[in-house]
Amino acid sequence: MSWFRDNIDRMAAYVPGEQTGETDVVKLNTNENAYPPSPRVMQALAEFDPELLRRYPDAMATRFRRAAAKVLDVDADWILPGNGSDDLIMMIARACTGPKRRMAYPTPTFTFYRTQADIENAPAVEVPFGEDFALPLEELAEANAAVTFVANPNSPSGTAVPVEQLGELAERLDGLLVIDEAYIDFAEPEFSSLRLAMERENVIVLRTLSKGYSLAALRLGFAVARPAILEGLLKTKAIYNVGAVPCLAGAAAMEDQDHKNANARKICRARDKLSRRLEQMGFRVWPSRANFLMVRPPAGDAERLYRELKDRGVLVRYFAGAATADKVRFAVGSEQENDRLLEALGTVV
Amino acid sequence: MSWFRDNIDRMAAYVPGEQTGETDVVKLNTNENAYPPSPRVMQALAEFDPELLRRYPDAMATRFRRAAAKVLDVDADWILPGNGSDDLIMMIARACTGPKRRMAYPTPTFTFYRTQADIENAPAVEVPFGEDFALPLEELAEANAAVTFVANPNSPSGTAVPVEQLGELAERLDGLLVIDEAYIDFAEPEFSSLRLAMERENVIVLRTLSKGYSLAALRLGFAVARPAILEGLLKTKAIYNVGAVPCLAGAAAMEDQDHKNANARKICRARDKLSRRLEQMGFRVWPSRANFLMVRPPAGDAERLYRELKDRGVLVRYFAGAATADKVRFAVGSEQENDRLLEALGTVV
Repeated sequence: MSWFRDNIDRMAAYVPGEQTGETDVVKLNTNENAYPPSPRVMQALAEFDPELLRRYPDAMATRFRRAAAKVLDVDADWILPGNGSDDLIMMIARACTGPKRRMAYPTPTFTFYRTQADIENAPAVEVPFGEDFALPLEELAEANAAVTFVANPNSPSGTAVPVEQLGELAERLDGLLVIDEAYIDFAEPEFSSLRLAMERENVIVLRTLSKGYSLAALRLGFAVARPAILEGLLKTKAIYNVGAVPCLAGAAAMEDQDHKNANARKICRARDKLSRRLEQMGFRVWPSRANFLMVRPPAGDAERLYRELKDRGVLVRYFAGAATADKVRFAVGSEQENDRLLEALGTVV
Repeated sequence: MSWFRDNIDRMAAYVPGEQTGETDVVKLNTNENAYPPSPRVMQALAEFDPELLRRYPDAMATRFRRAAAKVLDVDADWILPGNGSDDLIMMIARACTGPKRRMAYPTPTFTFYRTQADIENAPAVEVPFGEDFALPLEELAEANAAVTFVANPNSPSGTAVPVEQLGELAERLDGLLVIDEAYIDFAEPEFSSLRLAMERENVIVLRTLSKGYSLAALRLGFAVARPAILEGLLKTKAIYNVGAVPCLAGAAAMEDQDHKNANARKICRARDKLSRRLEQMGFRVWPSRANFLMVRPPAGDAERLYRELKDRGVLVRYFAGAATADKVRFAVGSEQENDRLLEALGTVV
């Protein structure tokens, strides 16, 4: 007997983007925010009460839940906090998918959805996006999975699909539609599906503080859905999945919307400027509503580009696989980082 | 179609111990450490670098892993950090149990094991401890489950079983033996099964910083096992399960063994004093090697005792169920808290 289930033995582990300890590297490979988090977050850390650390945290992270509910203008019981949105994706897969309960999603996308289907031994229906990354609505509706994931804006493409199409998809599905809005803070407000989570009984919206709020290391995300859905997901939650530090620091971040919005505006301006420059250099640039760009180099030699940029101290992301092998993805950095990227690209294209 | 799997619909969620915001309550219901964490932890929080928050954390929490490895005198690749030990218990259940892969454990114990079996739809073989809480070795060996959990010291009993018996159990099992040492910091060194994890290929030891290190709110635990086991468990890990704050603050805590040990000694002395007093008052007190006591009140009316103590501002834990309905469990608090407990007990017994 193996120690592990057969499907676990068969599957490969998810491989996260490289993290480097080197400080002179321009690190654009994991779509981190170019700017630091709100000073209120740092203040919350600096003033942390040791008495709070000694105790178990609030199992529902109520302080954060209320702060998020206020910003989103929903009741607090429509919010379920998680240890990053990967925690929430795991809860959903574990509660809702299995050998007889399919998972579907358009590809290429966040490969962690597939990891979760593999762990649950659930059939994964992968529906390819076309070259334009429009939503393959018909095929996803036909797949009619127990859970359908759509990252909107999507990664690695940066593209977003209209909420109306997601509403139509939700209407046609018998299962849950999970709209992963990790990058929504960089998109125009009309791309948010929050309204769908309010209106439809089968929609979950996922949000994270990793991107817009510059808090990737804090590990804090949340699901927005009607309480009947969240009560089911709760059963697969770790007892205390969100520590007191992310709870309180995350609440402080939510309460500083101005800081988050100002950073997002700077990044969006830099993104659009970078897009134009790259197009002038002959790159194909997919229209991004996130804090990163997916581009095809003029000669399509993306893997070479990735390696040569790395040799020059600029770390971008390359994904092997038919739909992505001719493309690279990189975060929009600070002005200085973007200049170094353009400079390095100039020498290798 | 329900949104959820049938077994999820059928099961109840784990219910954690009450948390209270009231500051004048003597809170002894969730076995928190009576004393604050190391000042080094607070310093790590106060000096946290915002740049580190913006970035994704190290997916393997290497800084903490190395600190823990040094204290335990093992190689770092024998350590797998988790978002509290509940995260590790979830990883183990998800990777190793299922409809055809049983889980076994002696009862009464931490009920979260059962929650995990229910989520995985895995048969749970519950082997009752006797009145003396000796290890039911024969029955657990006969169950021969894919995963056997033994909390040692056990909760709610506080009792510990000899490592030699756990070694014999490991020898006889074809599956994994997980020894949950959440409370080991309050037991004599000879009760630790670390040696078994080194010697036997099927043993995992779980540790946590919630109890000995006074860091329940930080969410940090770790598994110790041979790398071949940890590589399989890793597949079910959230991408970044341990944030940068628990990683660095946890490393600071590990590096201050003196602080942890001094607190543990104080608690053990208070525990033994409290035990004697309670025995004088006619309670049956199980021999505890943890930071809490399980006791049977003279008249066995444990639920009434729980309620009346609560009315007097002292929160202890009562578990319904055949093996526990005549007992209460409470943490050993500070000197002042223990005095208030004794005083309240004097008025209600």
